[in-house]
Amino acid sequence: MQYPAPISKLIDGFMKLPGIGPKTASRLAFYVLNMKEDDVLDFAKALVNAKRDLTHCSSCYYITDQDPCVICDDSHRDRSVICVVEDSKDVMAMEKMQEYNGLYHVLHGAISPMDGVGPEDIHIPELIKRLQDDTVQEVMLASNPSIEGEATAMYLSRMIKPTGIRVTRLAHGLPVGGDLEYADEVTLSRAVEGRRDL
Amino acid sequence: MQYPAPISKLIDGFMKLPGIGPKTASRLAFYVLNMKEDDVLDFAKALVNAKRDLTHCSSCYYITDQDPCVICDDSHRDRSVICVVEDSKDVMAMEKMQEYNGLYHVLHGAISPMDGVGPEDIHIPELIKRLQDDTVQEVMLASNPSIEGEATAMYLSRMIKPTGIRVTRLAHGLPVGGDLEYADEVTLSRAVEGRRDL
Repeated sequence: MQYPAPISKLIDGFMKLPGIGPKTASRLAFYVLNMKEDDVLDFAKALVNAKRDLTHCSSCYYITDQDPCVICDDSHRDRSVICVVEDSKDVMAMEKMQEYNGLYHVLHGAISPMDGVGPEDIHIPELIKRLQDDTVQEVMLASNPSIEGEATAMYLSRMIKPTGIRVTRLAHGLPVGGDLEYADEVTLSRAVEGRRDL
Repeated sequence: MQYPAPISKLIDGFMKLPGIGPKTASRLAFYVLNMKEDDVLDFAKALVNAKRDLTHCSSCYYITDQDPCVICDDSHRDRSVICVVEDSKDVMAMEKMQEYNGLYHVLHGAISPMDGVGPEDIHIPELIKRLQDDTVQEVMLASNPSIEGEATAMYLSRMIKPTGIRVTRLAHGLPVGGDLEYADEVTLSRAVEGRRDL
């Protein structure tokens, strides 16, 4: 036996989302049945609008509902630094810090030969193009500290360094609030490598 | 700084669902941005339709898009047994077993004095009314093995037994495939209590 069609379809919809299996999907679907109709309508509208109204900024490729995006459009931002990240969510992480005032460039991926993702498949050519006018003085590589992220940082560093622009990489080391005991060997070795005089 | 409005609204929408915090909500919202537009539209429609088209069966209170529901409407079902469950999802669990062929009664809750839920707040009066014609010969209490579920079963048993209808309760014991070592004391004591001759 199956649930009535409307709820089956909703369960199927939830199951298409990442990390949501049949049990969670049916729990969420039944929760929706008990939500206020207005809230459900708003949620449905939000889904459609997010998909329809959002594009990527034509300059930095951050998700946006206006082009150029609010960051590229902000005249108070320091246009001499570009922070290169893999994903739009990473921009938000940087912004939450409230210390960085430069621009961004969202690659939407990282170089991964295993998955057949080369430099042309992510927004690297567009980054190189942005560097051609002389405003940019530093490229801060903030790709993830994963194999793919490191490979991407390495590739970009080799591409950009010959142009004379300063290329920096976020520091690796112990996360603040973490415990030395639980740090993995690679992180610990990076922390030792990057130690600073006090 | 905030995400652009369309994505913020979508994140808020996901956050209204149970068990979904800000991080998961933003992961899901960004996943939606990369989904096919048709899939997103289907999902949004499924949300609205599930909310609009589903009601509860006027006889057994199972969720349904037709009244009476497919189960109550099925002439091959045994009308002499009613299985009483707390939730529509429990009906599905029973149906998956493919061994029960009677009818259901969904209480939509359990008696819980702590939360101010009394017998009249769940569909108990409607159940008592269903028992008044003489077709029903057994009421199988399948409320959850929790304090509230047990209280509900106890209450129903006291209400129904004087009418002469057989009242049964699902067995408590070790879950199949489980491990004696990890069984809690209460479950184990119930398993011993309910032991059977081989």
